[in-house]
Amino acid sequence: MTVPPRGFPDAEFEARTLNAQALMAEAGLSALLLTTEPEIRYYTGFLTRFWESPTRPWYVVLPASGPPIAVIPSIGAHLMGQTWITDIRTWQAPDYGDDGVGLLADTLREVTPRDGDIGLADAMESHVRMPRADLQALEVALALRKLVSDAQITRRLRMIKSEAEIAKIRAAASVANRAFDRVAEIAQTGTPLSAVFRSFQALCLAECADWVPYLAGASDHDGYRDVISPATDAPLEQGHVLMLDTGLVHDGYFCDFDRNFSVGPPSAAVQSAHARLIDATAAGFAAARPSVTIADLFHAMNAVANPGRSAMEAGRLGHGLGMQLTEWPSIIPADHTELVPGMVLTLEPSVALEGGRIMVHEENIVIRETGAEWLSAPQGRDMRVLT
Amino acid sequence: MTVPPRGFPDAEFEARTLNAQALMAEAGLSALLLTTEPEIRYYTGFLTRFWESPTRPWYVVLPASGPPIAVIPSIGAHLMGQTWITDIRTWQAPDYGDDGVGLLADTLREVTPRDGDIGLADAMESHVRMPRADLQALEVALALRKLVSDAQITRRLRMIKSEAEIAKIRAAASVANRAFDRVAEIAQTGTPLSAVFRSFQALCLAECADWVPYLAGASDHDGYRDVISPATDAPLEQGHVLMLDTGLVHDGYFCDFDRNFSVGPPSAAVQSAHARLIDATAAGFAAARPSVTIADLFHAMNAVANPGRSAMEAGRLGHGLGMQLTEWPSIIPADHTELVPGMVLTLEPSVALEGGRIMVHEENIVIRETGAEWLSAPQGRDMRVLT
Repeated sequence: MTVPPRGFPDAEFEARTLNAQALMAEAGLSALLLTTEPEIRYYTGFLTRFWESPTRPWYVVLPASGPPIAVIPSIGAHLMGQTWITDIRTWQAPDYGDDGVGLLADTLREVTPRDGDIGLADAMESHVRMPRADLQALEVALALRKLVSDAQITRRLRMIKSEAEIAKIRAAASVANRAFDRVAEIAQTGTPLSAVFRSFQALCLAECADWVPYLAGASDHDGYRDVISPATDAPLEQGHVLMLDTGLVHDGYFCDFDRNFSVGPPSAAVQSAHARLIDATAAGFAAARPSVTIADLFHAMNAVANPGRSAMEAGRLGHGLGMQLTEWPSIIPADHTELVPGMVLTLEPSVALEGGRIMVHEENIVIRETGAEWLSAPQGRDMRVLT
Repeated sequence: MTVPPRGFPDAEFEARTLNAQALMAEAGLSALLLTTEPEIRYYTGFLTRFWESPTRPWYVVLPASGPPIAVIPSIGAHLMGQTWITDIRTWQAPDYGDDGVGLLADTLREVTPRDGDIGLADAMESHVRMPRADLQALEVALALRKLVSDAQITRRLRMIKSEAEIAKIRAAASVANRAFDRVAEIAQTGTPLSAVFRSFQALCLAECADWVPYLAGASDHDGYRDVISPATDAPLEQGHVLMLDTGLVHDGYFCDFDRNFSVGPPSAAVQSAHARLIDATAAGFAAARPSVTIADLFHAMNAVANPGRSAMEAGRLGHGLGMQLTEWPSIIPADHTELVPGMVLTLEPSVALEGGRIMVHEENIVIRETGAEWLSAPQGRDMRVLT
């Protein structure tokens, strides 16, 4: 496949900004205050792994009109200067006396009326990435201006991906497809699971992942007990089911899917569970088209994966995907979001096996006008077998 | 070197908990509420890459006495059950009606008096990892109980590492030492910087990193312009300085240091700058011993790296290191923390070159009774040269 060009044209960031400003006008917001990596990157294009360091706060102010304003530590000025942002205000962080709060308050006062409402993320899946004492000091400095809900504006916009975003997610998925196709090179009976994890990440890099922020999995007899554990040094054994679930990144966008492997020939129970997972994923794929709800998708998959099992027991059967490993919405019965073209989702049915064990399968799709389209390479009902 | 055993004995978590509870009594706190990955892992040992998913909040309550209580999504119950924590309260997340706030409020009410103060991180380098609306709902549910500052208790404890923690950081540094020694295998004139980044991460994995959360760097003539950028596809050229700065993880603990390479023989200016960086690092190492202050360390390095340059221009010359890539304290003139045995620090002097370019060198040390000890392998004044 063709690898899409890096970055986005400025026009894409301008469009995101204008879309947000239209929703801000509807919600009566004079500005948005952005504090987290994906929020800031969505409007500016500021892409760095430096967020791994918790030391410095980073702020972007989205005014009611005009481009975003960056209020950031000076260490980031050169990189931010390469984006479309021109109004970049910096301080030398960390500053034990005032770590950017004064500069941020000045900026917000400059672009909002004295009793304006300023939107700040407050809903599920969000947090405010600034020290709590600084947030309290900011509220005092803003006097009559109030920090209110951001009306989920950024979340609502990010849920519908542009073609350029979809191309990046597809490129990430293509890397993972190729890495999964090479697992037999690195995993055999006797290989410690920790070595499989290390080698699989190296395969992802060899297949051109930029980096590999997420890998979880397990290897156990007749299924596994959880899907979020790091690796142990225990070796693969004949009869194990090895599951690897990766979220790797291409140009700032994730894929997120897993593959199951049988070490030696699978038992009838494991093979049957895998086939049900594939059928459940296919049922989700067939159901996924505009105006269907997320809850409909849930029930389409759960009915196949676990005939008779309650929705409560099933848990979450997938989620949004994009700049983060998991995004809004969650595929649960309580979610009545209607599917819209441009939504990128994971379909992630699970089945219960004997003794508290489970198996999980996951694929990535995008919603189009006429239905769903695969971003990952859909798997067949027969399990992959390792020696 | 010998790789230390994975994990910690329960006694280490018990000691951390008792130490926190002694400081809580001093500060008049009835409980601590923990919401972030390092805070929760510090007291429980809960180690997973699943934090990459922003969907679910995770809570731990540290009562005035007795072990911590986990209040977590059910998807984490199996993994948390393998730690020393036995009181694990779960809900099926995400729950659009109440995503754990009710369960958390019940738990806090159970273990604190009705007008008790509950500590929550609020100082620099911290944030509260829960949705702001949920934090506000929790405050209402707690009625007379107040969420106050955590008095930096967890930060103060984490700043002094145990021998077991130091062994893990040393193991991570040893992996990076070996990977840096192999850079000539993957980087030559003409290699795109993006390929160097991918291959270097694979080298770190081949040398037994668990994962590689951080890699930044640059390659440019006569130094570079920033130290936080991701890679471009531009090829290495004769006369470039290639800098690679990695934070890789062994068993949940980071190293964080960089190496500079000259592509072809270095210019006199670049070689001289590198020698000054090494001398500045050595000056920091010589100065680092108990009862000296962080500010003293700053001035010891800055005087050698940049004779005559103001402290303001120099920025930060290192920081704490451990469960996170960067930790408290910051090596800046305003920091008067006294060094104590068990502190792990990076020494990270920078020098300014012509045309706004810089060079940075970084090593990792631990403070002992009699002075500093290297955790990374200290470099000589001569630059490493690539062909």
